[in-house]
Amino acid sequence: MSIYTIVIHGGAGTILKEDMTPALESSYQKGLKDALNAGYDLLANGKTAVEAVLAATMSLENNILFNAGKGSVFAKDGSQEMDASIMEGKNLYAGSVSAIKNIRNPVELAYTVMTKSPHVMLSGKGAYEFAKMQGIKMEPDEYFFSQFRYDQWKQMQGSNETALDHNVVVKDLPAGQAGKKFGTVGAVALDIHGDIAAATSTGGMTNKQFGRVGDSPIIGAGTYANNKTCAISCTGHGEPFIRAVAAYDVSCLMEYRGLSLEDAMKVVVHEKLIKMDGEGGMIGADAKGNTAMVFNSEGMYRGRISSNGKNEVAIYKNNML
Amino acid sequence: MSIYTIVIHGGAGTILKEDMTPALESSYQKGLKDALNAGYDLLANGKTAVEAVLAATMSLENNILFNAGKGSVFAKDGSQEMDASIMEGKNLYAGSVSAIKNIRNPVELAYTVMTKSPHVMLSGKGAYEFAKMQGIKMEPDEYFFSQFRYDQWKQMQGSNETALDHNVVVKDLPAGQAGKKFGTVGAVALDIHGDIAAATSTGGMTNKQFGRVGDSPIIGAGTYANNKTCAISCTGHGEPFIRAVAAYDVSCLMEYRGLSLEDAMKVVVHEKLIKMDGEGGMIGADAKGNTAMVFNSEGMYRGRISSNGKNEVAIYKNNML
Repeated sequence: MSIYTIVIHGGAGTILKEDMTPALESSYQKGLKDALNAGYDLLANGKTAVEAVLAATMSLENNILFNAGKGSVFAKDGSQEMDASIMEGKNLYAGSVSAIKNIRNPVELAYTVMTKSPHVMLSGKGAYEFAKMQGIKMEPDEYFFSQFRYDQWKQMQGSNETALDHNVVVKDLPAGQAGKKFGTVGAVALDIHGDIAAATSTGGMTNKQFGRVGDSPIIGAGTYANNKTCAISCTGHGEPFIRAVAAYDVSCLMEYRGLSLEDAMKVVVHEKLIKMDGEGGMIGADAKGNTAMVFNSEGMYRGRISSNGKNEVAIYKNNML
Repeated sequence: MSIYTIVIHGGAGTILKEDMTPALESSYQKGLKDALNAGYDLLANGKTAVEAVLAATMSLENNILFNAGKGSVFAKDGSQEMDASIMEGKNLYAGSVSAIKNIRNPVELAYTVMTKSPHVMLSGKGAYEFAKMQGIKMEPDEYFFSQFRYDQWKQMQGSNETALDHNVVVKDLPAGQAGKKFGTVGAVALDIHGDIAAATSTGGMTNKQFGRVGDSPIIGAGTYANNKTCAISCTGHGEPFIRAVAAYDVSCLMEYRGLSLEDAMKVVVHEKLIKMDGEGGMIGADAKGNTAMVFNSEGMYRGRISSNGKNEVAIYKNNML
């Protein structure tokens, strides 16, 4: 019988056990498990990889703990601007949205761009108009609000630091919310039909300004899927991931050099990105059922379930799966 | 003595000699020569590849005949929204802007994002605010206006077609303006120091809507530069170029498979993009002084000058250089 599997991440960064309470830790674990199950249940019922990554990513977007959809971070002007993308490995179809507001599930809008428009990438107000025409679910600003993201932003705003400042450490916040984190969410999956897919969604970086776009909505940088090679979703400091064309580089190392999924991911995350000061990580799946979760930061919210028996979630570096 | 060289393009598409008047043809040739010289003069004086591609691309932006900067096409709402990007091969630094208005030279703003901000990609109003802070030259809407682009738009607007409709042929327009064209401009160069760079700028596709972003501002898709491999600038139907991660794929075929610049470009343009219905082309240079101009459309405005004696411009398929 064919293997099917799903892998998710909920962001990478300076995630340390000493900053976490047991209650918060189990909330994160529950959020990861819920998202995994949302995708895995579909796969178990014969649904496609793209449906599974969509469902898992939406589950993470709907969870206020993760920086995507509800609970997104605040930009410099106090707004919550989100980016997302999705790609299907069997036909290289892709959809992406950037700098969008008031969309309940940005990844659903990216999926709709892929399936209902001739475009790959829509941005800003235009993406919002397309969403309205397509009947995509909207929410008022209050829906996206979370007190701890607001406090994070207020503190950074006061200090005049930007979220891309590598030395920023936000203090005096609830346990688990201090430190530098790249809160992006994403999923990759292999379905029973042998197809793979990837999706990524983010609220960006706290206190970001000037309409900054990170790697999450960039096909090839934050997200990529190709049945011949791999499905990849990244999380981290977006600028180096864009300059490294990180997700597609994994695919090329597999296709042109013959590396395995995990070896290719390690070259990109532990060698290439490190040289560019590119902190973060990525999750991957291939069409043979291999999966990997690789990061160069202190931690990465992550998990995977596979029909061959794997079922696990993890947060810190030293409980590598 | 080290070779230095510059290659430019002014867009690809259905460019046929029978649609062109001799006067218009020589205007295009002059525009290409002026842009080449703007970059080459800098290279001959020991300036860098990134300065050369910036100058050549700005020259094309300032020329009303090309769809970038002045003379950009009209979006669905009658506005002129532009995208641009630039990348340096020696350090993989990159800058990009998307969905910007009223910026005289979008590629100059992309360069300023690269050199004066911690970001790679800025979009929309935020990019405009950054431009104001940096003293980037602005122009009123009238500056960007051209009658033939306006007529193109009016005709498509009336027909309710979009520019991504592959069957769109705009008729009853001045000679040389009919047919399907992907009016992007770009340049790649190698300098006397052995460094390469690439830049791309566009007004997008006529009658585009929903804040559609094409490949031009996407690092890895429309633009890429890496001293180890190549500098690439693309022009064509943006969506397949994004899905193919076209510019970075050339680099990977060179780095991981050992292909020459031209062979790698041919694999992407004549094999991979053709399979994805991706009409267009690209220009390339490597650090050894090789250059190539490859396209799968009827024509591509293009030219190159090299310190080893090459000096040529061309428009149609059958005067391949």
